[in-house]
Amino acid sequence: MKKRLSHYDARGKASMVDVSQKAVTTRTATARAFVALSQEVIRALPENPKGDPLEIARIAGISAAKKTSDLIPLCHQLPLTHVGVEIRTEDSGIEITATAATAARTGVEMEAMTAAAVAALTVYDMTKALDKGIEIRGIHLLEKTGGKSGTYRRRQAK
Amino acid sequence: MKKRLSHYDARGKASMVDVSQKAVTTRTATARAFVALSQEVIRALPENPKGDPLEIARIAGISAAKKTSDLIPLCHQLPLTHVGVEIRTEDSGIEITATAATAARTGVEMEAMTAAAVAALTVYDMTKALDKGIEIRGIHLLEKTGGKSGTYRRRQAK
Amino acid sequence: MKKRLSHYDARGKASMVDVSQKAVTTRTATARAFVALSQEVIRALPENPKGDPLEIARIAGISAAKKTSDLIPLCHQLPLTHVGVEIRTEDSGIEITATAATAARTGVEMEAMTAAAVAALTVYDMTKALDKGIEIRGIHLLEKTGGKSGTYRRRQAK
Amino acid sequence: MKKRLSHYDARGKASMVDVSQKAVTTRTATARAFVALSQEVIRALPENPKGDPLEIARIAGISAAKKTSDLIPLCHQLPLTHVGVEIRTEDSGIEITATAATAARTGVEMEAMTAAAVAALTVYDMTKALDKGIEIRGIHLLEKTGGKSGTYRRRQAK
Amino acid sequence: MKKRLSHYDARGKASMVDVSQKAVTTRTATARAFVALSQEVIRALPENPKGDPLEIARIAGISAAKKTSDLIPLCHQLPLTHVGVEIRTEDSGIEITATAATAARTGVEMEAMTAAAVAALTVYDMTKALDKGIEIRGIHLLEKTGGKSGTYRRRQAK
Amino acid sequence: MKKRLSHYDARGKASMVDVSQKAVTTRTATARAFVALSQEVIRALPENPKGDPLEIARIAGISAAKKTSDLIPLCHQLPLTHVGVEIRTEDSGIEITATAATAARTGVEMEAMTAAAVAALTVYDMTKALDKGIEIRGIHLLEKTGGKSGTYRRRQAK
Repeated sequence: MKKRLSHYDARGKASMVDVSQKAVTTRTATARAFVALSQEVIRALPENPKGDPLEIARIAGISAAKKTSDLIPLCHQLPLTHVGVEIRTEDSGIEITATAATAARTGVEMEAMTAAAVAALTVYDMTKALDKGIEIRGIHLLEKTGGKSGTYRRRQAK
Repeated sequence: MKKRLSHYDARGKASMVDVSQKAVTTRTATARAFVALSQEVIRALPENPKGDPLEIARIAGISAAKKTSDLIPLCHQLPLTHVGVEIRTEDSGIEITATAATAARTGVEMEAMTAAAVAALTVYDMTKALDKGIEIRGIHLLEKTGGKSGTYRRRQAK
Repeated sequence: MKKRLSHYDARGKASMVDVSQKAVTTRTATARAFVALSQEVIRALPENPKGDPLEIARIAGISAAKKTSDLIPLCHQLPLTHVGVEIRTEDSGIEITATAATAARTGVEMEAMTAAAVAALTVYDMTKALDKGIEIRGIHLLEKTGGKSGTYRRRQAK
Repeated sequence: MKKRLSHYDARGKASMVDVSQKAVTTRTATARAFVALSQEVIRALPENPKGDPLEIARIAGISAAKKTSDLIPLCHQLPLTHVGVEIRTEDSGIEITATAATAARTGVEMEAMTAAAVAALTVYDMTKALDKGIEIRGIHLLEKTGGKSGTYRRRQAK
Repeated sequence: MKKRLSHYDARGKASMVDVSQKAVTTRTATARAFVALSQEVIRALPENPKGDPLEIARIAGISAAKKTSDLIPLCHQLPLTHVGVEIRTEDSGIEITATAATAARTGVEMEAMTAAAVAALTVYDMTKALDKGIEIRGIHLLEKTGGKSGTYRRRQAK
Repeated sequence: MKKRLSHYDARGKASMVDVSQKAVTTRTATARAFVALSQEVIRALPENPKGDPLEIARIAGISAAKKTSDLIPLCHQLPLTHVGVEIRTEDSGIEITATAATAARTGVEMEAMTAAAVAALTVYDMTKALDKGIEIRGIHLLEKTGGKSGTYRRRQAK
């Protein structure tokens, strides 16, 4: 059977597709983003005694997951049962991992992707005074579970 | 003079920094994102006679620019005088260029970055049924003008 | 038994009425709006090679359905399982049909009405440079199904 | 000079058009909507001693004016200096008049139209238990002032 | 077993905690706020023939309950089945009681608290022209039911 | 001259009052809230090594200031030039001080009050697992500057 773009019906018309007949199941998704930083910027991060910038990015990512259906036109509104964002400082930048879960009729890939992307944008916002050339790289889905298509796991090759 | 993280005051405390004394000037910014797609997915895009998915992504990006201060915790609310998003299909994916402008006391880099990122997330949302491994790459600032720090132009090396 | 205004309790006080004890059932609603346009304006619509204005109105209507409970003070928040908006150019204007569905304790009439109304406002927004006198006419419910009051179908008399 | 659809540039591409070079002037707009009600429904309105449903509709209209740029994709964000909504019960229904004002680079027609439309949707929401066939009629602009195109006044012919 | 701050996991990291495994049960909460007013301000309230300011505060509280998860970063999105706000004028000010209900995996204490707080802020907004020193006092939870921790009732000692 | 409730016109009708003719001036406001905590809860706060709950409350307050006109029905939308929230742990609870500034036609008292209130609600949200009886006390304006009514400073009597 031929695959179609998401959200498109048989006539090729985009809508918020009808999931009324799909089963409510537990669904999770994990996405990743990376903000490439120079050594100079990485060193500047811990120089701020109060108000960890990465903690602000983490909270921004969690809040953004809840706004996904307001940002992405054809996304369903999903009552999320969990959102977590982890941020780790690595040698060449900031690694962001976002996880979302729900019990619903459709998956939470976009919620995890949105949380990762907005956390990354917030890191950029807080470091751009040091280096405007900072780049957000490699936003992708690491894993999803649940729903008719079952489990997906990205092949590792970072 | 030593540079500091954005939004941090002299005591190392994050806030929506006071720009009351900065001049209202015209400011613009242009950002870019790229969604890497396989040949199979690129060929699927024009198969939809009605409702161009890239047009939906373009509108999502424009709308998202207006929500930037709601997504990024320490961003000021800026009355945008222009937002435009261009989307081009290239050999290996979708190239997104977002431009924002304002007459305000602070810059619109985050508005351009947010428009580019959300347009890219929307492209992902509409193609993920074909390939869950699609990756958003290289979200960065291309150019900004206006404000005390003047014009910035990214060195080209795509 | 005497009918009461919606959202009013026995004491005549408005609230978001308690639906805790109502059953979760599948509910749908379809609403319609019409934007009356002169022949001159209708002819101008297809003159735009890229970026169909009616497609933008369609997406605006779908997005607005998800904001219904934020716009209408006493509306419940409903996780929509489907939103579709169809727009057809007719002899004397633009005919808009919006459909919403949910599995919930209360109906989706307002979501369908809001989608139709906002799609119509967006058509107005995009054509008002040609004719400020354009009028939105006849926003009404065509049909609803589900819930205790069952199916309603408007008598046709367009 | 040939007129173009609003929001479209010379290449026929929709964007939030660049108003950076337009002057900041005082602009006002007034729009109207009408909710046709049967005598039975009109009589039901004053039966509610506390919590006037038309007052709730008035507040909903004022609040909605502030969300216009969030609802209509290509609308600029305008800092409104005034929003007022008047609601009058007439023989055959509810007459709604919404006024908005700003000091900005572009007009507030959409803010007035949106306030009128959402006030009308709220009247529908509060009366639909009495009559699902209630229709919103004749949403149109009554007047606008300010800006390069100057004053517009609709010819009366209700 | 030692109690932990809400929203913190075993590693001391804040997230929107995972409630996927919790049962969907009916949950209610009632919160209270008090706006202390001088006799002069209380007397001014009924001098407004049209548009009761306390009714506007009541509607603002109901609307705010629906935005709780947008305001409080780690709150889950809950589809509320009921929100009611009661406002009573007492000798020394305005007594606000807000009730929320849902059928969900986590409680609605924050929705009731947010409704009470925003209704109180709206009373302040409408009376501040008379007395800028007006104070909001004693926002607290009166009662909650449902969920694993069962019923809580505040000991009375106003 | 007799004082009137805020937002009410000469006919006693509430609206978002017309400030078109008022001058754009710099305006600031500072508000305060207090969350009364038992010694046991205060001691629990620093036990969380990562993710300071008071920092999350601070960010929630700053974000909420930007949503004031969405929460309080008759508030104007103001482009804030500064928002800062300070949170101090004291002997008997958490002291919150919120400051907002703008260059606009009307004041920012509600923005400061809203930031303080939402920061306090967030502290409650994060400590309620330890003690449901926690109370938010004494939300009031400490100071405002700018505008026709000039500077206000609350008499100290904490």
